[in-house]
Amino acid sequence: MTAESRELIETEIRRVMDEQGNAVRARNVEGLMSNCAPEVVSFDVVGGLQKTGTDERRKRVEKWFSSFQGRISYEERDLSITADANVAFCYSLNHVNGTRKDGQEIDMWWRATVCFQRIEGRWLIKHEHSSLPFDTTNGKAQLDLKP
Amino acid sequence: MTAESRELIETEIRRVMDEQGNAVRARNVEGLMSNCAPEVVSFDVVGGLQKTGTDERRKRVEKWFSSFQGRISYEERDLSITADANVAFCYSLNHVNGTRKDGQEIDMWWRATVCFQRIEGRWLIKHEHSSLPFDTTNGKAQLDLKP
Repeated sequence: MTAESRELIETEIRRVMDEQGNAVRARNVEGLMSNCAPEVVSFDVVGGLQKTGTDERRKRVEKWFSSFQGRISYEERDLSITADANVAFCYSLNHVNGTRKDGQEIDMWWRATVCFQRIEGRWLIKHEHSSLPFDTTNGKAQLDLKP
Repeated sequence: MTAESRELIETEIRRVMDEQGNAVRARNVEGLMSNCAPEVVSFDVVGGLQKTGTDERRKRVEKWFSSFQGRISYEERDLSITADANVAFCYSLNHVNGTRKDGQEIDMWWRATVCFQRIEGRWLIKHEHSSLPFDTTNGKAQLDLKP
């Protein structure tokens, strides 16, 4: 693959990630789901080891979005993309800031890995992994880390 | 890419993952490191948001291996591989079982995503992400989940 082709693909992946970010900020469930492959496997920050398929993914997203009041502030830092013609992955440190319906302020960084396959000309998310590390001294997830 | 080429590449990735598994069981630090790209970025189960490069990765692996007495029992379940000619990713649920030097039994499942790039003919790990989800009711990592 030429450097130009790779650059073009990276631009496409970045566009999908931008769409995902915009969907989070607007709490737009279908916007977030539209880039997922039907068989997407999600390893999420909370709620069990894995979720398989768009139905489970959608339920989790709906629950997450509905826990906030108003818009969510969201950013990805240091997005790194590695792409071939039909398979790509990217990773970043993500930040969310917002107010939950119970009044609690959320201001949290986590790690995100997103893996893509180009299917019928479209880059679709086949796998994603979002998480926090935990502190071995007390077993708690490290909710207050900053990059 | 033909189905035969894809199958061949998946076999190569599976071989690397087998080597990684054997290195964990034997607590062989250099075995585990030999498949990592120099710039590998690790999102690990514990110890901060990320580790960059082989030196940080090696220190973490040394610390982890040296916390156990004797061999570590280790398995990957449901390894799923998606590969193109030069970029690939895989994910699985991993299980470790062993006795720590302080006598504590470890019997834990976690989620693992491993992302590869073929560099000068070799499949090298450029990024890996290992984690547990946490329980929002008490903030604790879910150490006792089973697939």
